[in-house]
Amino acid sequence: VLQRTGSFKFRGAFNRISLIPEADRPRGVVAFSSGNHAQGVAAAARALGMMATIVMPSDAPAIKVRNTRAWGADVVMYDRWTEDREAIGGRISDESGATLVRPYDDPYVMAGQGTIGLELVEQAGVAGAALDAALVPCGGGGLIGGIAVALGGRSPATKVYAVEPAGFDDTGRSLAAGERVANAPDAVSFCDALLAPTPGVLTFAVNSARLAGAFAVTDAEVAQAMAAAHEYFKLVVEPGGAVALAAVLSGRLDCAGRAIAVVCSGGNVDPAVYAQALTATA
Amino acid sequence: VLQRTGSFKFRGAFNRISLIPEADRPRGVVAFSSGNHAQGVAAAARALGMMATIVMPSDAPAIKVRNTRAWGADVVMYDRWTEDREAIGGRISDESGATLVRPYDDPYVMAGQGTIGLELVEQAGVAGAALDAALVPCGGGGLIGGIAVALGGRSPATKVYAVEPAGFDDTGRSLAAGERVANAPDAVSFCDALLAPTPGVLTFAVNSARLAGAFAVTDAEVAQAMAAAHEYFKLVVEPGGAVALAAVLSGRLDCAGRAIAVVCSGGNVDPAVYAQALTATA
Repeated sequence: VLQRTGSFKFRGAFNRISLIPEADRPRGVVAFSSGNHAQGVAAAARALGMMATIVMPSDAPAIKVRNTRAWGADVVMYDRWTEDREAIGGRISDESGATLVRPYDDPYVMAGQGTIGLELVEQAGVAGAALDAALVPCGGGGLIGGIAVALGGRSPATKVYAVEPAGFDDTGRSLAAGERVANAPDAVSFCDALLAPTPGVLTFAVNSARLAGAFAVTDAEVAQAMAAAHEYFKLVVEPGGAVALAAVLSGRLDCAGRAIAVVCSGGNVDPAVYAQALTATA
Repeated sequence: VLQRTGSFKFRGAFNRISLIPEADRPRGVVAFSSGNHAQGVAAAARALGMMATIVMPSDAPAIKVRNTRAWGADVVMYDRWTEDREAIGGRISDESGATLVRPYDDPYVMAGQGTIGLELVEQAGVAGAALDAALVPCGGGGLIGGIAVALGGRSPATKVYAVEPAGFDDTGRSLAAGERVANAPDAVSFCDALLAPTPGVLTFAVNSARLAGAFAVTDAEVAQAMAAAHEYFKLVVEPGGAVALAAVLSGRLDCAGRAIAVVCSGGNVDPAVYAQALTATA
């Protein structure tokens, strides 16, 4: 299933925004995001006839900034290294009365993303398979939290694993530590969609109770997964969207004879970055 | 609908090969192709438990040669500028008794490709639309001939247009001339799947009776269409597979307020070529 706005984020944004009381709607919504949540919120707000202001880092992929504007949102840029996006979003919300739509740490956002879990069970049923495991890209943890709750209800034997970029394995290390730990501030990865500094409070509460484990993959492994999706599935997958596929192709999990769901969660990648990923691994 | 072997060619190849009499099957099949028919024949032969020998030009995309071999076929290379692939294929067929599976000029191959026409009608029905027109990539003319016959039966009001690379517009010029004319021998295009020298005898008989017209598009327009499919559909489309989309995006046909089917017929493109198409147009 391909996604409106090119990633899963529309699901949670639409679910959250559709629950804003009628009286608050004229003041619009505000969100901070590196780009996929931005587009999801902008598209959901437009579908519901509301204004959207999106706070985006100045190094966000051009495709994501362009498409967020194309959905009619106002884009406010900030410097990811020196400014605090939560503070900027909070200030805009305070001043305008716009409802803040969080990217992951919100039960209605998580519930929207969790509809992917329902679809995984449906697709497995069509294929006549019972899912042994699901591998899901993990940034702040909203997508995987929603999916884990959905699978817990519909397919409780399925083990759910988070996959993160190396250096941004905060969920994996937090699961091991039993508490929320942060990534090193100087960590870098081209998986722009998965650079949240720590697990969310709510998402970690859900994920620490439900996940079977976590894997971390390198940017080189992610580029190989993007090239494999290109060659074998004819599908454009962005770096952050390809980490779960990278974990499988790199042998992180023994898949032999088992039914494994792999979530490719987005395809919003600048042509130059995509071209480099394809040709670096050819 | 994505395609087994990454293009539509499996449909015609499977239909044709499945009709080979039992007694002839041990001698296998032979085909000549720049790559997509090659993979379709190789995969169909394997599915039916038969040997396949494929005659491919030495400048065929590496991905197509690799995948043809991966389906278990023997690949024989020839020089597209100095050797005659039909003669080579005929000689192999004569010597080995293998059945020659033509890339387009065969009624059973055309019928197999025509199943796409049935699916277009089905998809339009789901969308609640009646198709005003269908734009279809055209090389030898088997795909569009099969589709035109299928639409003639199921959706007779739909106009069917061929789209060809500039310089390889033999079907368009043949329709205008009322007879089969050839492309200039020095014509070049990166649409490797659509470089047939003339319309087929059988395909032209069908197409001259059924097509509403033809358009030609430049390689630059094709590269823009590949980039658009990348950005908006997250779909990898090869040059020859993107000509119909290029015709629409370049405004060759007035689409305003009309329901138009656009066939993207393949996605087998080398990463370096794909990267170049994306970045040249970014």
